[in-house]
Amino acid sequence: MNAAEPDTLSLLAQKIFDDLRAMSPDGAGVSRPAYSSIETRALDYLSDVARAHGLAVDHDAAGNGWFCLPEHRDADRFMVVGSHIDSVPEGGNFDGLAGVVAGLLVLIRAQGRGLRIPVKCLALRGEESAWFGSCYLGSKALTGQMTATELAAPHKADGRPLADHMADLGIDTAAIAAGQSLIAPDRIAGYVELHIEQGPLLVERDIPAAVVTGIRGNIRYRAITCTGEGGHSGAVPRVYRRDPVLAMADLLTRLDDSWLHILQTGGDLVLTSGVVGTDPARHAITRIADSISFSLDIRSQSTEVLAHMRDYLHEEMADIARVRSVSFDTGPEIPAAPALMDKTMVRDLMEAMRSTGIEPFSMASGAGHDAAVFAQAGVPAAMIFVRNRNGSHNPREAMEIADFMVGTRIISAYLEALQP
Amino acid sequence: MNAAEPDTLSLLAQKIFDDLRAMSPDGAGVSRPAYSSIETRALDYLSDVARAHGLAVDHDAAGNGWFCLPEHRDADRFMVVGSHIDSVPEGGNFDGLAGVVAGLLVLIRAQGRGLRIPVKCLALRGEESAWFGSCYLGSKALTGQMTATELAAPHKADGRPLADHMADLGIDTAAIAAGQSLIAPDRIAGYVELHIEQGPLLVERDIPAAVVTGIRGNIRYRAITCTGEGGHSGAVPRVYRRDPVLAMADLLTRLDDSWLHILQTGGDLVLTSGVVGTDPARHAITRIADSISFSLDIRSQSTEVLAHMRDYLHEEMADIARVRSVSFDTGPEIPAAPALMDKTMVRDLMEAMRSTGIEPFSMASGAGHDAAVFAQAGVPAAMIFVRNRNGSHNPREAMEIADFMVGTRIISAYLEALQP
Repeated sequence: MNAAEPDTLSLLAQKIFDDLRAMSPDGAGVSRPAYSSIETRALDYLSDVARAHGLAVDHDAAGNGWFCLPEHRDADRFMVVGSHIDSVPEGGNFDGLAGVVAGLLVLIRAQGRGLRIPVKCLALRGEESAWFGSCYLGSKALTGQMTATELAAPHKADGRPLADHMADLGIDTAAIAAGQSLIAPDRIAGYVELHIEQGPLLVERDIPAAVVTGIRGNIRYRAITCTGEGGHSGAVPRVYRRDPVLAMADLLTRLDDSWLHILQTGGDLVLTSGVVGTDPARHAITRIADSISFSLDIRSQSTEVLAHMRDYLHEEMADIARVRSVSFDTGPEIPAAPALMDKTMVRDLMEAMRSTGIEPFSMASGAGHDAAVFAQAGVPAAMIFVRNRNGSHNPREAMEIADFMVGTRIISAYLEALQP
Repeated sequence: MNAAEPDTLSLLAQKIFDDLRAMSPDGAGVSRPAYSSIETRALDYLSDVARAHGLAVDHDAAGNGWFCLPEHRDADRFMVVGSHIDSVPEGGNFDGLAGVVAGLLVLIRAQGRGLRIPVKCLALRGEESAWFGSCYLGSKALTGQMTATELAAPHKADGRPLADHMADLGIDTAAIAAGQSLIAPDRIAGYVELHIEQGPLLVERDIPAAVVTGIRGNIRYRAITCTGEGGHSGAVPRVYRRDPVLAMADLLTRLDDSWLHILQTGGDLVLTSGVVGTDPARHAITRIADSISFSLDIRSQSTEVLAHMRDYLHEEMADIARVRSVSFDTGPEIPAAPALMDKTMVRDLMEAMRSTGIEPFSMASGAGHDAAVFAQAGVPAAMIFVRNRNGSHNPREAMEIADFMVGTRIISAYLEALQP
C-alpha cells in the first residue's frame, strides 16, 4: 500500500461529501428527495468522479447507478458495495451517501492493484420513507420486491404517485410493476453496506467502526388506545376510578421492567413509546381522562424475543384491564421480521477488521437498511457501521472522515481476502 | 308534619327544575352564564316562586338573591342555606341550582310552622370559573374577597371584563373593588349548602345523601415537563437512553403506589394526571421523545397529606432524574388550602340525618364550593351532598328528586333542632 494513498483517498472523500452537501442544501441540513432531479444530479456527480478515476459507469432499469473497474463491467457474478444517495428532508449528509462513497473509494483504491473477484459499487435511489411513505424503493425495484401500492403511493409534497416520478426520470416502470427482478439475484455474490450508526453506541464505547450482526425486526403499534372513564379529578375516590393514564403508566413500567430482565439474560431488545397523548378536545387538568393513546415500537434481532414481548404485552394489558377496569385496543400490529446478516460475511468482516489493526466489534442495527432487502432476495448481505454522533435524519449527524476511512479499509481488506 | 307535604314539595321542586331547565337550554344541557341576563331571569323566576309562597325577596349589592320568612327580613343574625344559580356551558341543571331550591323548600316548609332561629336562602351568582376564569365570584363579592384581577378578567366569549358585566346588571362595583364585605360576616350564624355529589361515591354505596366533612385542598401543576434526549427508536441501547416517556410512567406509577399506601393507612387523597402529551411538532413513532408534559392535580382534606405528597413528588423526581438521566421542571405550583367544615355543624347535621331515619354518612368534597369562601371569611360552613350519577358539569347529571328531598329534609331537621 502506497503510504500517501490513505491521505489522498481521505481528501477525496472529504471533497465528495462537501460538494454533494453544497449541491443539496435545505435549512441547516440537506435534502435529496427520492426520484428527484436533485437525486439525479448527485448521481451524475458521483458518476463523473467514477469516470475521472477510470471506472466504468452504468445504470440499471430502475435508475440506480453502478460503478466498477472496466474489466469487471460484464462479470457474471460480483460482490456489491453500496448504499443510497437520497436523504430525508433537512437531513444529514452522511446517511446513505457514506456507503456509496465507500464503494467508490474501495474501487479507486483497487485501481492498478486489481481485485481477485469482481466488485461493483451500487448507488441506490429512494431509500428514505419520508418522500413516498415506503422505504427501500431503489433496492426493492431492483430485486422485484416493489408492490403496486408502493408504485401508486403519492409524493408527500406534490401528491403525484411514485410511478409518475420514476417515469419523469425515464424509468420504464412496467417491469417493476410486474414484480420482475431487474437483475438475477444469484449474480450478486454478496452485498456489503457501510452506514453511519444511528445510535450512540460506538461514540460511547470509543470504537471507530463495527460489523453489524443483524437488523432488528419490530412489532409496531401506531396508537394503542387505553379507555377508562372521565370524571372530576377531586371527586372520584381511587377505588371507583378507571384512569387510563395511570393504566398506561403501569403498562409501560411493566414493559420497562421486562426489557431490563431480557437484557440481563442476554437478549436483544429496544422498546419505545414515542407518541403519547390524551385527547385535546376532551382533556382537562381537573378531569380524569376518558382515554389516552400511545405508540409502541418493539425491536429485536430475535424473532423469539419479539414473539415473547408480543405475548407479554397482551398478558399485561389483560391484567391491567382487569385490575384497573380499563380496556386496551392495540389497533393493527405492523410487524417486520429481523434480517440476520450472512454469518460467513460477518465472520470474514470481523477478520478483516482485525487485519486492519482494530479489535473486532459487532453490534445490531436498530434501523432497517437496503441490506435487508437484499437479504430478503436471497443475497448474502452484511454491513459496517461507522461511529457517528447525534443519530441520523438530522443536520447534526457527525461522522469523522478518519472513522469513515477505517470503515472503507475494513471493506477493502475483506474484499481483497476473498477467494474467487 | 302534614302527610301530603312531602309530595307537594317534591312536585314543586320538580316543577322549578323543569322550568329553569326550559329557560336556559344549550345543546343537550343548560347554560346559565355568570352575570348574564339568563342568570338574572333564573333569579327572577325563583323570586316569583318565593313571593308566591309568601316569602320576602331581597338582593344584595352584588346582585345575589335573598329569600326569607317575612318576619326574619330584618334579623340581625341568621342561618343561610344557599348555593349558586349559574352553570357551566352545556352543563347540567342541578350543579348549584339544587342548593338554592333546597333553601327555598326549607323556607316554604317552615311557613306557618315558623323557625326558632332566622334562616335566609341565598341564590348566588357566578360560581363557575367557565365564564371569567375564576370561581366563587358571587360569594367572593359578597364577603369582600374579590381581587382586582378577578374584576378585570375578560369574559371567555366577548372579552369584556367582569366589572363591565356586573355594571350591565346595575351592580355598583366600587365597594367590591375596595374589598369591602357587603355583609358583616358575623351576621351569618352558619352557611349550609346542598350540592350534588360530583363523583360516584353515593351511587356506588347506595346512599341518598351525605354530610360533607371538608373540601379537599390541592396542589396543582398545569404542566410538568420531563426532558430527556430524542433518538432513533431502534438504534439507541437502553443504557444510553434518556427516555422522558418511561421516566413519566415510572413517576406516575410510584405516585400511584404511594396513593394506595396513604389510603390504606387512613389518609385522604386523590391524584390525577389528566393532560398528557409528547410534542406533536417533534414526536414520531420511531423516535425516542425529547420531552413529555403532564398535568398533576393532588387533592386532600389534610394539609399534612398534601405537604407529604409534595415532598414525595420532589424526592421521586430527583431519584428518577438521576437513574434515568432526565430532568423534571414542574413549572409553577398552584396551591389551594383544604377547607374543613365546621365540626359542630357537621355533628349536628349527622344527628339530623339520623333523625330523618337514615344512617349518618359523611364524605369529603373533592371540588371547591362557595361554602369554602364563607369558611374562609370566618363563617361556620357545612354541606350536604346528594347522590348523583355521571358527575357534574355535563348534561348527564342525574339527581333523583327523592334523594334531593332527603337532603332538604336533613337541612330542615337540622335547622329545626337548632337552639336560638
